[in-house]
Amino acid sequence: MATQARPDTSDSFASRYAAVRQLSLAIAAPLSDADATIQPMPDASPAKWHLAHTTWFFETFLLRDHVPGYRAHDERWAFLFNSYYEAEGERHARPRRGMLSRPSLDEVRAYRGAVDAVMMAALPGFSAEALALVELGLNHEQQHQELMLMDLTAAMAENPLKPAVWPAAPWRPRPDYDAPRMLHIEGGVVEIGHDGTGPSTSLRTGFAFDAETPRHQHVLRPYQIADRPVLVQEWLRFMDEGGYADPLLWLSDGWAWVQAEGIEAPLYWEKGETGWLRFGLDGLQPVNPAEPVCHISYYEADAYARWAGARLPTEQEWEHAARMSDPDAGDFFDAAGPVRPKPPLEPPRIEKFFGGVWEWTASAFLPYPGFRPTEGAVGEYNGKFMSGQMVLRGGSSGTPRGHMRASYRNFFYPHQRWMFSGLRLAKDL
Amino acid sequence: MATQARPDTSDSFASRYAAVRQLSLAIAAPLSDADATIQPMPDASPAKWHLAHTTWFFETFLLRDHVPGYRAHDERWAFLFNSYYEAEGERHARPRRGMLSRPSLDEVRAYRGAVDAVMMAALPGFSAEALALVELGLNHEQQHQELMLMDLTAAMAENPLKPAVWPAAPWRPRPDYDAPRMLHIEGGVVEIGHDGTGPSTSLRTGFAFDAETPRHQHVLRPYQIADRPVLVQEWLRFMDEGGYADPLLWLSDGWAWVQAEGIEAPLYWEKGETGWLRFGLDGLQPVNPAEPVCHISYYEADAYARWAGARLPTEQEWEHAARMSDPDAGDFFDAAGPVRPKPPLEPPRIEKFFGGVWEWTASAFLPYPGFRPTEGAVGEYNGKFMSGQMVLRGGSSGTPRGHMRASYRNFFYPHQRWMFSGLRLAKDL
Amino acid sequence: MATQARPDTSDSFASRYAAVRQLSLAIAAPLSDADATIQPMPDASPAKWHLAHTTWFFETFLLRDHVPGYRAHDERWAFLFNSYYEAEGERHARPRRGMLSRPSLDEVRAYRGAVDAVMMAALPGFSAEALALVELGLNHEQQHQELMLMDLTAAMAENPLKPAVWPAAPWRPRPDYDAPRMLHIEGGVVEIGHDGTGPSTSLRTGFAFDAETPRHQHVLRPYQIADRPVLVQEWLRFMDEGGYADPLLWLSDGWAWVQAEGIEAPLYWEKGETGWLRFGLDGLQPVNPAEPVCHISYYEADAYARWAGARLPTEQEWEHAARMSDPDAGDFFDAAGPVRPKPPLEPPRIEKFFGGVWEWTASAFLPYPGFRPTEGAVGEYNGKFMSGQMVLRGGSSGTPRGHMRASYRNFFYPHQRWMFSGLRLAKDL
Amino acid sequence: MATQARPDTSDSFASRYAAVRQLSLAIAAPLSDADATIQPMPDASPAKWHLAHTTWFFETFLLRDHVPGYRAHDERWAFLFNSYYEAEGERHARPRRGMLSRPSLDEVRAYRGAVDAVMMAALPGFSAEALALVELGLNHEQQHQELMLMDLTAAMAENPLKPAVWPAAPWRPRPDYDAPRMLHIEGGVVEIGHDGTGPSTSLRTGFAFDAETPRHQHVLRPYQIADRPVLVQEWLRFMDEGGYADPLLWLSDGWAWVQAEGIEAPLYWEKGETGWLRFGLDGLQPVNPAEPVCHISYYEADAYARWAGARLPTEQEWEHAARMSDPDAGDFFDAAGPVRPKPPLEPPRIEKFFGGVWEWTASAFLPYPGFRPTEGAVGEYNGKFMSGQMVLRGGSSGTPRGHMRASYRNFFYPHQRWMFSGLRLAKDL
Repeated sequence: MATQARPDTSDSFASRYAAVRQLSLAIAAPLSDADATIQPMPDASPAKWHLAHTTWFFETFLLRDHVPGYRAHDERWAFLFNSYYEAEGERHARPRRGMLSRPSLDEVRAYRGAVDAVMMAALPGFSAEALALVELGLNHEQQHQELMLMDLTAAMAENPLKPAVWPAAPWRPRPDYDAPRMLHIEGGVVEIGHDGTGPSTSLRTGFAFDAETPRHQHVLRPYQIADRPVLVQEWLRFMDEGGYADPLLWLSDGWAWVQAEGIEAPLYWEKGETGWLRFGLDGLQPVNPAEPVCHISYYEADAYARWAGARLPTEQEWEHAARMSDPDAGDFFDAAGPVRPKPPLEPPRIEKFFGGVWEWTASAFLPYPGFRPTEGAVGEYNGKFMSGQMVLRGGSSGTPRGHMRASYRNFFYPHQRWMFSGLRLAKDL
Repeated sequence: MATQARPDTSDSFASRYAAVRQLSLAIAAPLSDADATIQPMPDASPAKWHLAHTTWFFETFLLRDHVPGYRAHDERWAFLFNSYYEAEGERHARPRRGMLSRPSLDEVRAYRGAVDAVMMAALPGFSAEALALVELGLNHEQQHQELMLMDLTAAMAENPLKPAVWPAAPWRPRPDYDAPRMLHIEGGVVEIGHDGTGPSTSLRTGFAFDAETPRHQHVLRPYQIADRPVLVQEWLRFMDEGGYADPLLWLSDGWAWVQAEGIEAPLYWEKGETGWLRFGLDGLQPVNPAEPVCHISYYEADAYARWAGARLPTEQEWEHAARMSDPDAGDFFDAAGPVRPKPPLEPPRIEKFFGGVWEWTASAFLPYPGFRPTEGAVGEYNGKFMSGQMVLRGGSSGTPRGHMRASYRNFFYPHQRWMFSGLRLAKDL
Repeated sequence: MATQARPDTSDSFASRYAAVRQLSLAIAAPLSDADATIQPMPDASPAKWHLAHTTWFFETFLLRDHVPGYRAHDERWAFLFNSYYEAEGERHARPRRGMLSRPSLDEVRAYRGAVDAVMMAALPGFSAEALALVELGLNHEQQHQELMLMDLTAAMAENPLKPAVWPAAPWRPRPDYDAPRMLHIEGGVVEIGHDGTGPSTSLRTGFAFDAETPRHQHVLRPYQIADRPVLVQEWLRFMDEGGYADPLLWLSDGWAWVQAEGIEAPLYWEKGETGWLRFGLDGLQPVNPAEPVCHISYYEADAYARWAGARLPTEQEWEHAARMSDPDAGDFFDAAGPVRPKPPLEPPRIEKFFGGVWEWTASAFLPYPGFRPTEGAVGEYNGKFMSGQMVLRGGSSGTPRGHMRASYRNFFYPHQRWMFSGLRLAKDL
Repeated sequence: MATQARPDTSDSFASRYAAVRQLSLAIAAPLSDADATIQPMPDASPAKWHLAHTTWFFETFLLRDHVPGYRAHDERWAFLFNSYYEAEGERHARPRRGMLSRPSLDEVRAYRGAVDAVMMAALPGFSAEALALVELGLNHEQQHQELMLMDLTAAMAENPLKPAVWPAAPWRPRPDYDAPRMLHIEGGVVEIGHDGTGPSTSLRTGFAFDAETPRHQHVLRPYQIADRPVLVQEWLRFMDEGGYADPLLWLSDGWAWVQAEGIEAPLYWEKGETGWLRFGLDGLQPVNPAEPVCHISYYEADAYARWAGARLPTEQEWEHAARMSDPDAGDFFDAAGPVRPKPPLEPPRIEKFFGGVWEWTASAFLPYPGFRPTEGAVGEYNGKFMSGQMVLRGGSSGTPRGHMRASYRNFFYPHQRWMFSGLRLAKDL
C-alpha cells in the first residue's frame, strides 16, 4: 500500500472520499435487508458486511488512531467487522458472517453516515501519513465494491427463483468474430512493477499497493499475445470438442477438481432448452457469444490455452504488453452499471487490456524482488496472501472505474471462479 | 395422522383455523426480514420458510385438491416450500433454505393472507375427508410453531451480539429444591397409544398422529418415576462432579460425540464471569437453578441418569404415569409468551408431566404393533422417520397450548438438542 | 455376559478352550502376513488384530487378574490390542489398526501360544468366577471369528485382483423356489429373553450375554412370519422393478443413504457381462438365486419388506417363532468351511431360523426391562452400545457352530452391511 | 526428461541399470511382507508398490514398446501399478494402494527379476530413443527410492511401537554452532536451468528432467545466502520463543494450517521426558541439535525465515549460488545408509548446497520460459504438476548418490513435510 498520498488538496480528497463511499451505497440500493444479509459460501461475504467492514477500516485506522477523543460507534462491532487483521484482535468467524441478521442494513447505513460525518470533518486536518491511509481506505473500498458485486451474484444464484437485481442490458446477436490477432512483442530486459521507489510510491506516480513494488528488471523472451480475451463463442467450441472431458488438457490438480466437482461449464452457466444460459445480476440470460468468457477458474483457463495450442501469458508479459493500452478506456463499472463483460470493440481494432474480465496469468502471486510489506496492521494487506494463489490482471466490468493500472496485481486460488475472470492467450515467438 | 375430524362445526373449525394461523404470525412479529431469512444449520429452517411451508401445506392438500379451479399463488414456490414429501416432487435442498432472501417476509405474509382468504371461504363446504386434512394441517402448523421458536433461538445464538427477541421474564432465586419424589407405579398389562381404533381416530377421541396408533397392550414391570424433571441445580452438580469427563457414564456413541464436539454443558450455555449463562429468545441470562434443565441431547440425558443411579423411563412407562396428569395444566406456549421452561410448582406438590421441557425416553421411535401409515402424500408424515430417533414426551414451554396429549410422541436423533429437551428419572422397583 | 459358568468340569473346559482357540488359527491359516495386516475400513479390523485382541482378553481378565505373578507377554501390547474397554485405559485408534505391520503374524501366533500355555495350566485351578470369565472369553472369541471372516471379506474385496482365500463350493442352478410359506402364530403374553434370572444365567441354562436378560413378559399380537429368509432370486426381482430407485419405499434416513452412497445392489455385488456377480472369500462368483440374499443394510431390508407388502418381524416375534427350531440344525461355520449362505432345505420343508444369514428385525437394540450390565470392566460388553443400532437374529454361515441360541441378540447400525445379513418377512394377521 | 542419452556404451548402461535396480531391493531388504504393504496416507505408497511401479515403467515404456513379442508379466498389474499416466489408461485409486496384500512382496520381487532379465538382454540392441527412456526410467527409479524412504518413515511412524528399520548411527553432542555465514552474491543477468538446448539435453551435459529446461536468462539483484541450512538448535529457539503461536509470522494459509492441524513442531517430533525426540528409520531418538532441521513444511520454513529477519531464497538465487558447490560432495543416500541429515562440516568451512535436507525456496513450481513437455505418455512427467507446489533444491540424505545437480527442481505442496525438507536463509543486500 502507499505510504504517501498524491498531492491532492484535502478538498479533492473530500470529494473523492464522498464519491467512493457513495458508490458502495448505490450498489446496495436495490437490496432488501435480507438480500444484504445472506452469505452463499465462506469465500463470499454479505453486502451488509462489506458496507460495515469498509467503514470499520476508516473508523479503526483513521478515526481511532488519528482523531483524538473519537469514541467507537459500537464497541462490539470491531469483532464483527474486522476481516483478517490479526494485529487488530479476535474476529467473527468468516463462514458465519451470514448469521448477522443484526445489525440491520439500516443500522449499517447509519454507521456509515456517522463515520463519514466525522471523516469529512477531520479530513482537512489529517497529516500526510493519515491521508495515505485514507487513500488506502478508498482503494480498499473499491476492492470491496467489486467483491460486493461478486458476492451478490453468488448469493442470488443460490435462489431457485434466479432473481435479477437490475434489468438486463439489451444486446443483439452478431456475426462470428475473427480469431484474435496475435501481437508480436520483442523480448529483452524490461521494467516491471509500479513506477515508485522501494515499497512506497512517489507523489508523482500515484497510489499502488505494496505488492506492485518495487519496480524491477525482468528478462522477457520474444512472445505473442492476443489483442483481446477469449470469447464465449470460442469457449463453446472448446466445450463442444470435449475440452472438459480430456484429462490430457488439464493440470493434475485441475483434473482432480473437474472430477470432484463435476465441472462442465463456467460458473453460473446452465443448460436451457435452446442453449446455454448464464446467471448474473441481470438474471438468467442466454450466453452472449460476443462477450469475453467469464467466471472461469485458472484450471479452466490453463486447459483452454493448451487446447488452443497456446499458453497463458506471465504477469510480466501481460504488464509489458498492457503498457500500450489506456486503463481509462477500459470497460469498468460505475454508477451507470450494469455489471457484465462487454464485447470487444470492432474495427478499427484497438488493443484493449483493461476491463471486461480479469485475465488469468501463468504467474503465482509471489513477492517481487526486494518486496517489503508496509509497517503496522495495514501491512497484513497483501504479503500474507502470497501463497497458493495466481495473478490476474486488467480489471473487469465489476471493477470501479479509476481503480485500475497496468501494474495492478489481483490474485485468487486456482479453483476459484466467482470473480469476473477470463483469459487471454499467449505464445512463444 | 387423523383420517376423521372431531365433530366440530365448520364454524368452530374456522375460528380455530384463524387462531392457529394467527399465532404463527405473532411469533414472527418481532422479526426483521433478515431475521426471518437466516438459517443457522441444516436441521433448522428460517422463520420465513416455516411461515410459507405451513401455508403450502394448506394450498397443496386442501386448495389444490379440494377447491376446484384454484390456481397456485406462485407456481414456482412449491419447489421452495415443500419440506420432504417425495410424492410431491422435487424440492429445494434443505441446507440452502437460508439463501432465500426472496420472496421477502412481506411477500410470504401476503401469501398467507391470500391462502387464508380462500381457506376461510372454502371451509364451510369441505367434506369430512377435507376437514380431517385441515385438522392435520393445523396440528402440523402447531408443530412448526415450536420449530420456529427452536430455529430462531439457534439463529440468534449465532450472532455474537446475542440479541434478545423479547424481554426476559423476571425470576427470583429460590432456595434449593428437595430431591424429586419418586412415584411408585404398579406393573401389569396396560393400554398404550391413542384411544382410537387402528390407524384412524374416532370422532370421540379427537385428533392424533398416525404414529400414536393403534392403541395396544404392553407389559409393564413395577417402576418408579420422578414427579418432576431434573432441574438446573441438579445438572450443575453433575457438571461439577465431572459428569462430562467420565467415559464410563456414557453410551459409546455418546462418548464419541462428547469428544468430537467438545461438549461440556447444555446447548446455549456459556461461562460468564460469575457463573453459567444461557442464551434464549430473551437474550443471554444467568441460568436459573430452579428451572428444568433444557437443550440436552439423549446422550446427556442417559449419562445423567446413569450418574444419578437411575435410568430414563420407557415411553410406555412415561405415558402410563402421565395419564394421571392434566395436559391442560401444562406450561405451554401461547400468545402471552415468553418461551422458557418454568420451575415446577411447589407444595402442595402436583405431579406434572406436561409442558416445561420435552422429556427424553429410553424408547426408539418405532411403529406400534399394527401401525399403518395414512394413505397418500400425507402418509409420509411420520412413518418414514422411524429410524435412528428416540422418543420424547410431554411437550415444552415452546409447544403451543392445546397441542399436547399423553399419547403424543415427539422424536429426535440422540445427538440433537436445539429443541426444548430435558429429562425425568425412573428406576426399577 | 454370564456371571456363572455351566457345570462343565475344567476338563471339558480345557478341550473347548483348545477347540475355540484352534478355530481362530484355522481361519487365519491361508493368510499371509500382509493379508492379516490390512484394514479396509474403520469398522473392520485386521485378522492379526483379532488374533491378538482375543488373546489380550484372556491375558488381561484371566492371567493378569487370576494368575498370581503373571507377567505380560509384552507390556506395550495392551495399548495395541484393547478394543474399547475404557476402564482398561488408553488404546490405539481403531481406524489406524491397519498400520500395525509389527508385531508380525508369526509374533502374534507366538503370543497366542504363550498365553494358551499358561491358560491351559491355570484352568484346573480357576474359581467359578474366573471360569465364568473364561466362558465369556470363549464366546467373545467366537464373535471375533465371525468378525474375522467379515473383515477379511471386506479386505479382499478392496483388491482389484479379487483374490479368493479358499476355493468356491460347487452349486447347481435350481428351478425357482416357491414363495415362502407364511407361518401363522398366535399372539398373547409370551416370555422373551434368556431363561435365567436377572442379569446372570443359571447353571442349568448355559451361557448368555447380559443383553439377553432378564427374561420377561411381552405382549404379541397374532402375526405371520416366513418359513425362510428372502432369496437372491427374489431380491433380483426387487432390483428389476426399481426398488432402489423409488423413494416411497424407503425410510428417510435410508433414502439419504442410497442417494449419498449410490447404492443399487447388495454389498460386494458387481455387474458382470452376463449377470450379477458377488465377491466372497471364495472369490468373485455369479450370484446364486437359491441362496438367501446377504450383505444388505437395515434400510435395504426395510425397503424390500415394504415393496413386498410385508414388514420385518420384531425381535420378540422372531424369538418366539424361532423357539420351534433347533439352533444345532443351522447352517453355521466350522473348520470344514466354506463361509457362504446356504440355500434353504427343500421339501419336506423345515422351518429354519438359524444360520445362513443374520436376519434384520424391526427392533432397536435397547435394554430389556430390568436389564443390568455385569459389574467391572467386562460390563462394558453390551450395554454401552445400546444406541442407534438394530437387532439381528439367528446367526449366519459365518457364525461358529455352537455359538447360537434363540435369545441371541446381534446388533449393527442400520447402514452397515459387511456382516452376513439378510431378512425374513413378517405380516400382521 | 531427456530425449537423448549420454554417450554411454550399453555396457555401462547395463551396469548402471543393475546398480540402480539393486539399490531399490536393498532398501526393501529389512522389510516384511506386511511392512511393504501398508500405506500410512494417500500421499505415500507402500514399498511394494514402489518396487512394482518402477518395474511397470520399464515393462511398459521399454519392453512393451521396444521389444517385439514381449508379453506382460501379468496383464492385470498395469491397472495396479500405473501411477498417474492418464494416457496409459485407468488405474487403481491411489488412497487404496495399502489394500494390496496381493501380489506379495516375493511376487513383486519375482516380477522385478523377470523384467530385469529381459531388460538386460535387450539393452545392447536398444535404439538411442529407447536408451533415453531407460535413462529416464533409472532417474525415475531413483526418485522412487527416496519416496520409498519417505513413505516407510511415515508408515513406521504410525506404529505406536515406533519400530526401527535399521540401527541408529551414533552421534556425539557438540558445542553450539556459530550463526551461519552469509555469502554475498552479485546480481546481474545470470543463466538458469540445465545446460541443454530447448526441451532436450545435449549429449555433453547429461540427463535432466524437462522441467529444468530450457536454460534461460534471469535478472538477479545482489543478495546474501547462508552457507548452510538452519540447524535443529536454531529451530528449538524459534519454538521456545513462540514461533508456532504468533500469527504475524505466518502466511495466511500457513496460519490456518497450524491452527487446523495443531502444529507445534516438525513432523515426527514428540516431547519426551527429557526433551524432544524425533522418529526416523532408526527409531525414536533424541533430536540432534547439530543436524539440519528436517520434515518441515513450506509454511514453517517461511515463518522461520520471517522470525529470523530473513527470507527464503528464490530458486534462481539458490541455483546461481549452488554452482560453486560440488554435488558429488553432498550427503546423499547410498547402500551404506543410514538415512538421516548430516551436520554441516566444520572449519575450514565449505559452502555446501547438496544433500542433508532439501531446501524450500520462495519459488512456485512453474514452467521456465519456453518450456515444452516431452511428447508422449512420459510427457506427463512434470508439466502437469505445475500448479500449487513450491520448489525445493539440493537433494537430501534420502536422495540416492549420483542423482543430484544444481539445476534439479523438486516440488511439493506447501503443507507437505514427510519428505526430508529443511531450509536455508537468504536476504537482500
